[in-house]
Amino acid sequence: MTNPSLLILAGDGIGPEVMTEVRKVIDWFGAKRDLKFDVSEDLVGGCAYDKHGTPLHDDTMAKAQEVDAVLLGAVGGPKYDTLDFSVKPERGLLRLRKEMDLYANLRPAQCFDALADFSSLKKDVVAGLDIMIVRELTSGIYFGEPRGIIEEGNERVGINTQRYTESEIDRVARSAFELAMRRDKKLCSMEKANVMESGVLWREVVTEVAKDYPEVELSHMYADAGAMQLCRWPKQFDVIVTDNLFGDLLSDAAAMLTGSLGMLPSASLGAPMANGRPKALYEPVHGSAPDIAGQGKANPIACVLSFAMALRYSFDQGDEATRLEQAIEKVLADGYRTADLLGEEGKQPVSTSEMGDAIVAAL
Amino acid sequence: MTNPSLLILAGDGIGPEVMTEVRKVIDWFGAKRDLKFDVSEDLVGGCAYDKHGTPLHDDTMAKAQEVDAVLLGAVGGPKYDTLDFSVKPERGLLRLRKEMDLYANLRPAQCFDALADFSSLKKDVVAGLDIMIVRELTSGIYFGEPRGIIEEGNERVGINTQRYTESEIDRVARSAFELAMRRDKKLCSMEKANVMESGVLWREVVTEVAKDYPEVELSHMYADAGAMQLCRWPKQFDVIVTDNLFGDLLSDAAAMLTGSLGMLPSASLGAPMANGRPKALYEPVHGSAPDIAGQGKANPIACVLSFAMALRYSFDQGDEATRLEQAIEKVLADGYRTADLLGEEGKQPVSTSEMGDAIVAAL
Ligand SMILES: CC(C)[C@H](C(=O)O)[C@@H](O)C(=O)O
Ligand SMILES: CC(C)[C@H](C(=O)O)[C@@H](O)C(=O)O
Repeated sequence: MTNPSLLILAGDGIGPEVMTEVRKVIDWFGAKRDLKFDVSEDLVGGCAYDKHGTPLHDDTMAKAQEVDAVLLGAVGGPKYDTLDFSVKPERGLLRLRKEMDLYANLRPAQCFDALADFSSLKKDVVAGLDIMIVRELTSGIYFGEPRGIIEEGNERVGINTQRYTESEIDRVARSAFELAMRRDKKLCSMEKANVMESGVLWREVVTEVAKDYPEVELSHMYADAGAMQLCRWPKQFDVIVTDNLFGDLLSDAAAMLTGSLGMLPSASLGAPMANGRPKALYEPVHGSAPDIAGQGKANPIACVLSFAMALRYSFDQGDEATRLEQAIEKVLADGYRTADLLGEEGKQPVSTSEMGDAIVAAL
Repeated sequence: MTNPSLLILAGDGIGPEVMTEVRKVIDWFGAKRDLKFDVSEDLVGGCAYDKHGTPLHDDTMAKAQEVDAVLLGAVGGPKYDTLDFSVKPERGLLRLRKEMDLYANLRPAQCFDALADFSSLKKDVVAGLDIMIVRELTSGIYFGEPRGIIEEGNERVGINTQRYTESEIDRVARSAFELAMRRDKKLCSMEKANVMESGVLWREVVTEVAKDYPEVELSHMYADAGAMQLCRWPKQFDVIVTDNLFGDLLSDAAAMLTGSLGMLPSASLGAPMANGRPKALYEPVHGSAPDIAGQGKANPIACVLSFAMALRYSFDQGDEATRLEQAIEKVLADGYRTADLLGEEGKQPVSTSEMGDAIVAAL
């Protein structure tokens, strides 16, 4: 039997640094748990633009379609801010999501016990928090046509289109209900059905899908109220399902609330491939953090946890994923902290690679 | 000289209750400060639908266009959830905003000293917080065409359109820069220029307008990062300018952070009328809270503070507005609390009308 294949796209900024630590973890699983992967690497984002004039080369796109899972670091940086919209680093990531049809973006917002004090929220509001945001990732205003900047009369007009078909809503809703079934069986769907017709359809379809999951308690909330409630009492939620744009804002807010931004992974899943595994891309929620890139300050945990999600969702190795997550909890409990996890305390932070080594040691 | 005119649209849910208290305050200013208003009342939202079959009657719309300022309570309620989209209570409010062309929605997010403990955020994160969110209110995805639910192939598709012209961005940006000039001279503009062309145009136009305000320090932030930063360290902001939809979510999140949701007012301003006053509508940020309506539990302060904003922005009575704001601070310092401001403390809350009376007494 051949080994499962992983394509690593480390990307820009702190992407390569954190991915170096993930490699150590991957190697450990190969050596000690006989979980071997065929790992290849390629470029995405600004670094791909620098080399090829495009943030994602067609060959890289083709490779991503063939592998069992893609692991991505982060894309973007100030150097690329003035690039034309069509070749911005983000377009590479968006093309991957769209062409691999990764419609369900799973973003756990979890508060690690050792870090509860680090949130800007009061400890009792976030301690033990564990919610899962399921964000639709391949449609909505991110991809809808028409779009662009046109001339009209004497001025320019910027246009984007929010578009959701019933089947697009249906499939991501099913992913969310399935997750809720394996958790606390509570699902909250968020849109602006009071203002947007696409939200009206969203609510209708989610309500229809709910009939297939009678055990799950479904509620609906306007996205603005959702933003409020996430800030007020996030523990009221178990699974949240929402569209691409609302999911972008709400999951970032939720991630920040946990105080664990440098800690949070994500999985983007599509339909099953011939081998039964879903098309999949795993990436940390944090960005490329160009301000600290190359200084050994970055926290590799979010990216390592993204690999744990890969073990769980792509390779059916839930126990090994848990093993890795527990190693990280141990490292945190032992007091290891990268600079982002220290705040005012004045302790000496560990470097990116010291954190990676500590995780491997804890394994 | 005739008195300035006010149209009161109390609306649904707790709207009428809180507006009763505002009437006491208006009467006090008439009797004691010789600031008399010609006050008329009418219907908006669900109650207008109940009477007229439309959430805003044409006659009411015409009145709103003629008065010096509109004071609105809140609209909506579960009773109207199943109504057709076109006659939902919210459509009444949206029609007012659109036809009066109230493009600049000012939403102060302020943390009242007496309530800092009440936020879900740590006290040092929110104590003394005072930011102003300027939300574009008459364009974007709230109003863009095409919109609706159409049939395509075998399924339905929900469509909304985000559309911004240069002049729409220009005018709301100017409102925000003007406000920044009277505050700490810092403006942060939020969009998703990395994903949406309408955001690219937004960023360009705001950058252009900045040339007319060289004293204001302008920054740009992606809206998802903005949601994060609002949760992490909101005091980094002075004035924020953003589009209609982002403004909806971000201002609600910011309001919740302050712990003062029942306390926050808003002003929606348009172009100057013949008399020099801007077209204007004032309303609390909170909703119609149907769960507590009619029980004397609602906090009238947000609505009273909306009247204070009217004094300042429509009637050039900044000193009187400050007088009213100080009366409210005194009432809070004296320990008056409606139920929403009590949390677990187990103290006895004051009723809506006791709070109104206390404010008048403090005046
Ligand atoms: C980098 C950017 C295109 C992306 C998005 O907007 O989806 C990011 O913010 C995210 O949430 O993954
Ligand atoms: C009631 C609703 C239409 C409205 C909006 O979405 O603008 C409300 O949420 C607000 O923020 O004023």
